[in-house]
Amino acid sequence: MNWFTETSETAQGRQVQVAYTKKLDSFQSGFQQIEVYETVSFGKMLVLDGAIQLTAYDHFAYHEMIVHVPMNVHPDPKHVLIVGGGDGGALAEVVKYPTVETIVLCEIDKAVIELSRKHFPEFNKAFDDKRVTVNIGDAAEYIKKKANAFDVIIIDSSDPIGPAEVLFGKTFYRDVFLALTAEGIAVSQSESMYYHRDFIAKLFHQNKAIFPINEYYFTLVPTYPSGTIGFSFCSKLREPVDKIAPHRIEGLAGLRYYSEAIHRSCFVLPAFFDRNN
Amino acid sequence: MNWFTETSETAQGRQVQVAYTKKLDSFQSGFQQIEVYETVSFGKMLVLDGAIQLTAYDHFAYHEMIVHVPMNVHPDPKHVLIVGGGDGGALAEVVKYPTVETIVLCEIDKAVIELSRKHFPEFNKAFDDKRVTVNIGDAAEYIKKKANAFDVIIIDSSDPIGPAEVLFGKTFYRDVFLALTAEGIAVSQSESMYYHRDFIAKLFHQNKAIFPINEYYFTLVPTYPSGTIGFSFCSKLREPVDKIAPHRIEGLAGLRYYSEAIHRSCFVLPAFFDRNN
Repeated sequence: MNWFTETSETAQGRQVQVAYTKKLDSFQSGFQQIEVYETVSFGKMLVLDGAIQLTAYDHFAYHEMIVHVPMNVHPDPKHVLIVGGGDGGALAEVVKYPTVETIVLCEIDKAVIELSRKHFPEFNKAFDDKRVTVNIGDAAEYIKKKANAFDVIIIDSSDPIGPAEVLFGKTFYRDVFLALTAEGIAVSQSESMYYHRDFIAKLFHQNKAIFPINEYYFTLVPTYPSGTIGFSFCSKLREPVDKIAPHRIEGLAGLRYYSEAIHRSCFVLPAFFDRNN
Repeated sequence: MNWFTETSETAQGRQVQVAYTKKLDSFQSGFQQIEVYETVSFGKMLVLDGAIQLTAYDHFAYHEMIVHVPMNVHPDPKHVLIVGGGDGGALAEVVKYPTVETIVLCEIDKAVIELSRKHFPEFNKAFDDKRVTVNIGDAAEYIKKKANAFDVIIIDSSDPIGPAEVLFGKTFYRDVFLALTAEGIAVSQSESMYYHRDFIAKLFHQNKAIFPINEYYFTLVPTYPSGTIGFSFCSKLREPVDKIAPHRIEGLAGLRYYSEAIHRSCFVLPAFFDRNN
């Protein structure tokens, strides 16, 4: 078997290996190295700069959770921004809401979109949805021009090294706050509660000064380092579990991870993990 | 760096690698290959037949959850049996209950106990507790002679290949049922809801014919394949979350994973996972 080695935790003395039958694509864009593999047990796999972004096998656990949690806390999300997310997996979840009117996807690297559309055609329908605008560019710049514009902002970025680093900073989160409407909610990919506690504590310390409500929730993604990844839940007004709308959840097709019960339990964290420390 | 490759999922095209600075021990017992490593990021690590059993870094997530969930559902556990568990990690959690009167640990391979005592001295105090009896032998045989003897049985076995295979069979679970008292509860290490769905479905199908109440719950162990591992909760009478005793939990020292809230949320499973199918 040929083995792909995921290197995002190699310097820390741990790594995951995935067997593949074929390397389908390998492309150096202006921003990063993009690879696509046909794997033995996870279907197709997208890799950016050596880090697994998604596999056909388990991406639902990530994409459903980054989208449906904020979408079901906001009372009526009509305007949604996805930052990053060029693979289209989060987009495919957002378009499931018939009451959403506009969706902007702001991705810096158009090659990610092109390669994902080629190898993960299941997301193409979402890209072709009439409510969707794809903006190729720097989301940190894009968002500066927006005020009171989005009900939900989904920050579906890669790790905080490389092109996505700016998306974890104070300036960016301040701009996200201003770009949100009065009951607005932002969520962001926020690493592993096992492997990145210091990073998460720093992020929460920073965001506490910006958003009134900051919580952390997790999902289970076996092909990510540590097998779990979490999200920051940054909210202007709404608490994460008080007022979920079960009727809205019932209308969502094809859920494989998310449910009302999972929404409530994903905010319950192991005793060792204090997101603020 | 030297890399240890965990081979339990290699045939399925996925594996975890852990960097180590030193191989501390390597011993072929009558039952299995036992290795102990000093790792770069997880402290000491115990390996049986190529499969990581525990690391100093994250074993609490496994041992607290296999022990404290059943112990806090049973109204008054006085007599506890641990099947396997020769490393002593589960034992160290059981001895935390002052109201427990007797604890039997039945381990087939005394070399596991000896090597664990040598390299994980933090468990030695539990082995030396006066309430503890260590029985070196086949738990499947031991339990046949017991009736109405234990309030809680913790089946802390390795994977269902090799010496532990018998501990997942129908005869063994029938004997476990008979060995339990009227409100008795058994829990067992029951693999990953991602990687071993067929195995879990088969186990639950089997156990449904033996125990009135069968549930599945999970914990997060980053050094295990897929990052999560689950447990079967087999109960004669008590449901898993109805009547937890918070005052008993408050008395437990040094908890790093388990809490009353975790007890409730660990039975909430992703939508894709039906333990019976």
